[in-house]
Amino acid sequence: MKLDLLTTLRQQNPVVFNIANFVTVQDVANGLNAVGASPIMSAEVAEADQMIAIAGAVCLNLGTLTTTQVNQMQIVGRLANERQLPIVFDPVAVGAVPYRLQVAQDLLATIQMTVIRGNAGEIAALAGVDWQAKGIDAGNGSGDVVAIAKACAQKYHCVIVLSGPTDVITDGTQVAKVHNGTELFQLHVGSGDLLSSIVAAFTAVQSDAPFDAAQTACLVLAGTGELVAKQFTAPRPGTFAADLIDKLHLVTVSELTEVADYED
Amino acid sequence: MKLDLLTTLRQQNPVVFNIANFVTVQDVANGLNAVGASPIMSAEVAEADQMIAIAGAVCLNLGTLTTTQVNQMQIVGRLANERQLPIVFDPVAVGAVPYRLQVAQDLLATIQMTVIRGNAGEIAALAGVDWQAKGIDAGNGSGDVVAIAKACAQKYHCVIVLSGPTDVITDGTQVAKVHNGTELFQLHVGSGDLLSSIVAAFTAVQSDAPFDAAQTACLVLAGTGELVAKQFTAPRPGTFAADLIDKLHLVTVSELTEVADYED
Amino acid sequence: MKLDLLTTLRQQNPVVFNIANFVTVQDVANGLNAVGASPIMSAEVAEADQMIAIAGAVCLNLGTLTTTQVNQMQIVGRLANERQLPIVFDPVAVGAVPYRLQVAQDLLATIQMTVIRGNAGEIAALAGVDWQAKGIDAGNGSGDVVAIAKACAQKYHCVIVLSGPTDVITDGTQVAKVHNGTELFQLHVGSGDLLSSIVAAFTAVQSDAPFDAAQTACLVLAGTGELVAKQFTAPRPGTFAADLIDKLHLVTVSELTEVADYED
Repeated sequence: MKLDLLTTLRQQNPVVFNIANFVTVQDVANGLNAVGASPIMSAEVAEADQMIAIAGAVCLNLGTLTTTQVNQMQIVGRLANERQLPIVFDPVAVGAVPYRLQVAQDLLATIQMTVIRGNAGEIAALAGVDWQAKGIDAGNGSGDVVAIAKACAQKYHCVIVLSGPTDVITDGTQVAKVHNGTELFQLHVGSGDLLSSIVAAFTAVQSDAPFDAAQTACLVLAGTGELVAKQFTAPRPGTFAADLIDKLHLVTVSELTEVADYED
Repeated sequence: MKLDLLTTLRQQNPVVFNIANFVTVQDVANGLNAVGASPIMSAEVAEADQMIAIAGAVCLNLGTLTTTQVNQMQIVGRLANERQLPIVFDPVAVGAVPYRLQVAQDLLATIQMTVIRGNAGEIAALAGVDWQAKGIDAGNGSGDVVAIAKACAQKYHCVIVLSGPTDVITDGTQVAKVHNGTELFQLHVGSGDLLSSIVAAFTAVQSDAPFDAAQTACLVLAGTGELVAKQFTAPRPGTFAADLIDKLHLVTVSELTEVADYED
Repeated sequence: MKLDLLTTLRQQNPVVFNIANFVTVQDVANGLNAVGASPIMSAEVAEADQMIAIAGAVCLNLGTLTTTQVNQMQIVGRLANERQLPIVFDPVAVGAVPYRLQVAQDLLATIQMTVIRGNAGEIAALAGVDWQAKGIDAGNGSGDVVAIAKACAQKYHCVIVLSGPTDVITDGTQVAKVHNGTELFQLHVGSGDLLSSIVAAFTAVQSDAPFDAAQTACLVLAGTGELVAKQFTAPRPGTFAADLIDKLHLVTVSELTEVADYED
């Protein structure tokens, strides 16, 4: 686990270009900014190449897709592939909405993603494994999440982050797990979107090792959330959202090292 | 007043499909999540039928309408009517902007709404009664808000929630009032949008009695806001927004019963 | 420095019509509401004339431009010019993205802006001066920001607000500076967007003296942020966002007078 990547991230302040979920976009922008990256969002395909030119990584989020936005993702994804820029893909709700699964598969057929970050229901759907998803939530499927994540990684030749109470990170062969976290992530809408964009930020500073970048991103967010939650005497999702932004800015590598609970 | 519906809501965790106001969408999603529902937003008409298939209720919000979005609302509304799914309609700013009043009337001509939730200026405009609205605010009209709400309910054969310092809920015959609340709701943009989506969440678990569902929703939000505001020594709209999300998650039926101030 | 304009603003509660950056729109709406204005957002060109009719000022923000939105800006800008309504223009990222610089120049060629509010990188780009911008951030150019702001004001015949650690306000001849502020503004995404909309709110109540309006707006926001930051023992960008909204509502003219640090 390369926690020192957090220091590198803060030194390099990489630009992360997000094609975003409009529900959670402000929180994601603030979270990226707080952790040490520089967020930029764009909805206009005409500036795609210029956005790519200044970006260190791209995050494509299906959360509030439209056909116009999916077209933009196709073009941005192709440009990012040409320039070998890391791409993180967040297939929001593909486990519950067949239309979205089709859109995701179409994108995956033409774009080489660097990392796919989803919950168990979403990753299972992409891997072609049965699971009970519910709306934007993971649902309560049973199954071996490690096997599902590995199958998905092998199918799409990329790193998978299957996030949940334990995050599973795999490139299809190697597997890492991050056990940190807090139930408050589930109570705050957009925790998954934020994780995807933070993974993108770490791939920007470690583009030759996305498996390492993804693990570190998971530990940084999950560990920071855990540190925040420890201060709480009751589950307060609104206060958690603000405190998480605070702590993403303030957290140190040594604080994270102390709390870190992972297998790699 | 069926406050036990809050327990039902938290047990059933209904999916509320929102065609949303992009200004307030994150707050609405977090509020729905906190109270015990599962929010999903969509901007793409091609997934309308699949969203309807997983939803327990629909909320249509005119806050940042476009012709594309209004077309989506027409299709979603028709599908929801076919499946007898409850629909809550939020006619943002129809009291101040004639174009929006026309859009609202066109939607109401083809879709049977279950509940319409608006402020006095908006409900008066739909009812065809004079009132002085101002932008997105209710304005300072004078008039009998109960009579206006009843006229609107009779005109559109649905339940009306005319929200304000006192919320008036009517199906055109029966009238309930919720006196709880706090002036902080006016200081926080999106309080009305959140109420509309919470009304939708309650109609999802009490679809055969939308008058009851709407009353309970009003009391849950107004009562929760009042409980939060009681802790404040000064009006702090930013802190209120976060604390309201916290308390929507934490509030109990017995706390609400104790503070409840209503007529039904 | 006319700090009494804050009292006027709160009495008149002007409607500010925003064509907004969807990343930061909720925060901007809440900030406008808190300071004493009435925000309204619209994305539909068909209601442009009716929005203009109820507005006291317009704010055009390029943050998440699309060709559709730029077309809406052209029409809204022309209507606002016809009615002599103040327009504030926020040229987000024109220093880093050439496409946006072209869009901004096209808008400036047909619309007479009242105020342009940008960071050093953005104002330098509009003025045609070299500067190193980075994404949405100002970058670390060197140069005389007063000279750059004056050149830009003379080029576009309007008031320039070049915001940063020191805000420079100029109409091309007169120059004012506001030294108040806090580094927390840089840590919170959307501080610039909020300033632009608050400038618009002040131009609505002082439309014959936009240079005065802009100065006051800068001092109100920077001074309020400084008052909030003084309470902090560590830089907490999430808490700052909420506390800033609180304080924009609560701050008094005498508190601001006491902390004010400016040249005019």
